[in-house]
Amino acid sequence: MSEPKQLLLNLFEMGAPGHITHGMWRQEGNQRQRYADLSYWTELAQLLEHGGFDAVFLADVLGGYDVHTGSLAPALRMGLQIPQVDPSVLVPAMAVVTDHLGFGLTASTTYEPPFSFARRISSLDLLTRGRVAWNVVTSYLPGAARNFGLADQIDHDTRYAIAEEFLQVTYALWEGSWDDDAVLADAEAGVYTRPDGVRPIDHVGQHFRVAGPHLVEPTPQRTPLLYQATASSAGIALAGRHAEVVFTGGPNPGVVRRTAEGARAAAEREGRRREDVRFVVQAAIITGRNDDQVAEKLARYRATTDPQGKFVHMSVPFDAPSHPVDRTVREALLAEGRDDLVAAGGLPMDITVGQLATGIDEAWQQHFFVAGTPDVVADEVERWLDEEGIDGINLRQYHSTETARDFVELVAPELRRRGRLREEYEPGQTLRERTTGGGPRLPDTHPAARYRSGR
Amino acid sequence: MSEPKQLLLNLFEMGAPGHITHGMWRQEGNQRQRYADLSYWTELAQLLEHGGFDAVFLADVLGGYDVHTGSLAPALRMGLQIPQVDPSVLVPAMAVVTDHLGFGLTASTTYEPPFSFARRISSLDLLTRGRVAWNVVTSYLPGAARNFGLADQIDHDTRYAIAEEFLQVTYALWEGSWDDDAVLADAEAGVYTRPDGVRPIDHVGQHFRVAGPHLVEPTPQRTPLLYQATASSAGIALAGRHAEVVFTGGPNPGVVRRTAEGARAAAEREGRRREDVRFVVQAAIITGRNDDQVAEKLARYRATTDPQGKFVHMSVPFDAPSHPVDRTVREALLAEGRDDLVAAGGLPMDITVGQLATGIDEAWQQHFFVAGTPDVVADEVERWLDEEGIDGINLRQYHSTETARDFVELVAPELRRRGRLREEYEPGQTLRERTTGGGPRLPDTHPAARYRSGR
Repeated sequence: MSEPKQLLLNLFEMGAPGHITHGMWRQEGNQRQRYADLSYWTELAQLLEHGGFDAVFLADVLGGYDVHTGSLAPALRMGLQIPQVDPSVLVPAMAVVTDHLGFGLTASTTYEPPFSFARRISSLDLLTRGRVAWNVVTSYLPGAARNFGLADQIDHDTRYAIAEEFLQVTYALWEGSWDDDAVLADAEAGVYTRPDGVRPIDHVGQHFRVAGPHLVEPTPQRTPLLYQATASSAGIALAGRHAEVVFTGGPNPGVVRRTAEGARAAAEREGRRREDVRFVVQAAIITGRNDDQVAEKLARYRATTDPQGKFVHMSVPFDAPSHPVDRTVREALLAEGRDDLVAAGGLPMDITVGQLATGIDEAWQQHFFVAGTPDVVADEVERWLDEEGIDGINLRQYHSTETARDFVELVAPELRRRGRLREEYEPGQTLRERTTGGGPRLPDTHPAARYRSGR
Repeated sequence: MSEPKQLLLNLFEMGAPGHITHGMWRQEGNQRQRYADLSYWTELAQLLEHGGFDAVFLADVLGGYDVHTGSLAPALRMGLQIPQVDPSVLVPAMAVVTDHLGFGLTASTTYEPPFSFARRISSLDLLTRGRVAWNVVTSYLPGAARNFGLADQIDHDTRYAIAEEFLQVTYALWEGSWDDDAVLADAEAGVYTRPDGVRPIDHVGQHFRVAGPHLVEPTPQRTPLLYQATASSAGIALAGRHAEVVFTGGPNPGVVRRTAEGARAAAEREGRRREDVRFVVQAAIITGRNDDQVAEKLARYRATTDPQGKFVHMSVPFDAPSHPVDRTVREALLAEGRDDLVAAGGLPMDITVGQLATGIDEAWQQHFFVAGTPDVVADEVERWLDEEGIDGINLRQYHSTETARDFVELVAPELRRRGRLREEYEPGQTLRERTTGGGPRLPDTHPAARYRSGR
C-alpha cells in the first residue's frame, strides 16, 4: 500500500481589512484592523509555522474594485482589498520570526518592469533561503490599468503575450545570468565574484528590452516556486507551460477536474510531465470542538457577511442588490440608465436579479466548503485529495486569526493522525523541495531550463 | 546661551558585499559576506538603535558599474555593489526588531512606475509607523538604463523633468488622495472607509498618467521624509524645491558650503524657508580607545583598500591603473584604442595618469575624514556642525560592523557628553519629527502641501 497523499497547506491572506470574506472585519475580536501592524503578520507567521503550514499565500491587486455600481464606494465602505499594503513588504517581517514557512506572492506581469521585479523576488528568495513562491497573474481590474498610464484594461490575449515574454526575461535573469559557482568570496585572492561566471541576458523582445546581468547572485531556488491562479483557457495554456502549482476553482469539482486535465495536457504538449503540475483550491473550512461550536461559527460568519461583497468582488456592473428580485437584469440596467451595458450584451439579460444573485452565490461558494468537527473536515480533505485529485488548499479566513488557529489546533492534528500532513518540517528545505519532492531548482523539463548557463 | 546643535546620525549602508570602501570585505571578521542574511541586518539595526542612530541610509543602483575598462569585470571581482539585494526588502526585517530606528531608502524616479512605488513606500511607512525616508535619485548609470528598455542613459535634464513629475504624482497620492479621517473602521455601522474621504488623483502629464486613488490609507508621515543626494546644478534646484535633507559632498568644505547655499537659495525662491533644508555629508571616521588602536585600524583599512575601486565607482572610462603614471590621459586612451573617447573630449587629456589618480583620490576623500580617539572625532564633528554648517552625517563603514560599533561604543558617549547627540529617543516620534523638529507631516511651505485634500 502506498503512502497516503499529503496535503499542500497554505493560508490565503491579503494585507487588507477585507480580502475574500467580506464584512467579517466587523466581528468581535477579529484582527483585520491590525493588517497594518507588523505584529499581526509576525504572530500569524509563527502560528502557521507552529501548525505546519507550507506557506502564507498573499493576494494582491493594483487598483480598486469599481465596476459594480461604477464606483469604488462599496469597496471602500467594506474595506474590500482597500486600504491595503504591498504584500512584498510583509515577507521579510514574517521571515525574521520563522525558519520554514513559505511565502506565496501574487504579482502581475502587466505593469512593472521585469528587471526590478526579478531583483526584488531574488532578494526575497536569497534572504529567506528559498522560501518564496510567485503567483503569476496578469491583472484583471480596469482600475489597475488606469494607475499605470492606460485608458483601460489591455485585452486578454495581449496580457498573456506580455506575461509570456515577462516570464522569459525573468527566467533569463534567474536561471542564466550567474553560474552557480560564480561567487567565490575568496578573501585571499581578492575575488568576490568570478567575472566569467556572470553574463548579460541581452533580451530584445516585443514588449521588453533588458540587458542584464541580473544584480542578485544565485538564490536557493533561482526561479521562485511558480504558482498560477487561473481558470481561463489562455490561463490554462500559460499554466501548462510554466506553473508548478495551479490555484484554481470552479462552481463544482467537475470544473476543477477539467481545468486540471487541461493544464496537465498543456504541460505534456510542452514536454513537461503531467505530475509536474499540482493543483490547489481555495478551501472554506469552519470547524469547532463539537457541532454546537461549528453551528455558532457558521451562524456568526453568515450574519456578518456583507452580501454586496460578492457583487463588488466579481465586478457585476450594476447595483443588483438595490433592485426587486423579480426584475430582469435588462430592466434593472435600464432603470439605472445603463443602456450602454444592455447594448454591449455579455450579461444574461432575461434572468431575474434574484436568479443572478443565486447564480453568483453558487459561483462564489464554488470552492471546497465544509463546516464540521475535525473528523468531518478531515474526511472532506481526504475526499478532495483522493477523489477530486487536488494536491492542496489555500485556506480562507472568516475570522482572523480564529480560522487559522482552529485549523492549527483542531484539523492539523487529525490530518497528521491520518498521515495527511507532515509531522515536522525538513530542516533547510526550500519551498520547492517541500512542495514538489524534487530539487531546489526547476526540473530540466521546465521551459526556464533552457536559459541555464546562458544558453 | 543656546543649546548646541545636535548631530543627525545615519549609517550609510548597502545590501552588497562592497558599498563604498572597496576591497574591505577581505578583512578578517568583516561581516560583508553576510549581506544576504537577515540576521546581519537585524543585528545591525539593533546595534544602531542601541547607539541612538537616526537611521540606516541604504544606497541603491539598478545596474552595474561597467564604464571603467568598458567591462563589469572589476566591479564583479571586487563585489562592488554587485551582487546586491533590493534595499526595500531589508526595511521590514529591521523594523521588526527595532522601535525607533529610521530607514533611508534610495530609489530612482527614472525607471519604475510611480503608482506602485508610492504604494510600496506608503506600505513601509505604515508598517514602520513613520520611520521611512526616501532618498530621491535619478540614476546615473548607463547600465541601469539598459535594464529598463533604453539604449543608453536618458539625458540629465530629461531625467530631472521626469523626477519633477514623478514627485508630483507621488505627492498627489500621498497627500491628497485620502482624508485623515477617511478610515473609520466602524464595526457597528459597517463602514471601514468613508467613501467621500477618498478621491482619484487623475494625473495626466507628459511622462505619467495615473488615475488613483492611492491604495494605502494615510500613513504617519504621508510623504516620507525627503532626502536628495546631489551636487549638480539641476540637482540643487530639485533639492531646493523638494528636499528636507540634502546628502552632499565635494572636494572640500567650501564646495559643501556652496551647495548648501545654492539649495537654501533655491528653497527660498520656491517659498520655503532656508532652514527647511538640512545637510548631511558622508563621514569617514576611524577611531579607537587610544592612538595605537587608531593607527592599527587606519593601516589595516588602507592595506585592504582596492585601489581600482575608486576608478570603477567614479566611472573613469579607461583602465588608468594599468598605465605608467607619467603617461598622459590622451596617450593612455590611444594605447587602449579609445580614439572615440579622445574625440569625444570631456576628459583632461594633457594631465598624466598619475595626476588623474591624485585628483580622483582627493575627490574620493572629499568627505568628512577623521582618524583619532573619540575626543578628536568629537572635535571634528563639532567643527563640521558649527563651522561648516552641516546638520549630520552618513557614516561609512570600513569594517562591518567594527566601524558602527566603534561609533556606538566610543564616539556616541563623547558626543552625548557634549550635548551633540540625544540621550534617548522620544517614544512614538516619526522620523520627520525627530529630524526636523516639526510635525509628522511636511510643512505647509512644501510644494507637496498644495495636493492636500485633493486641491
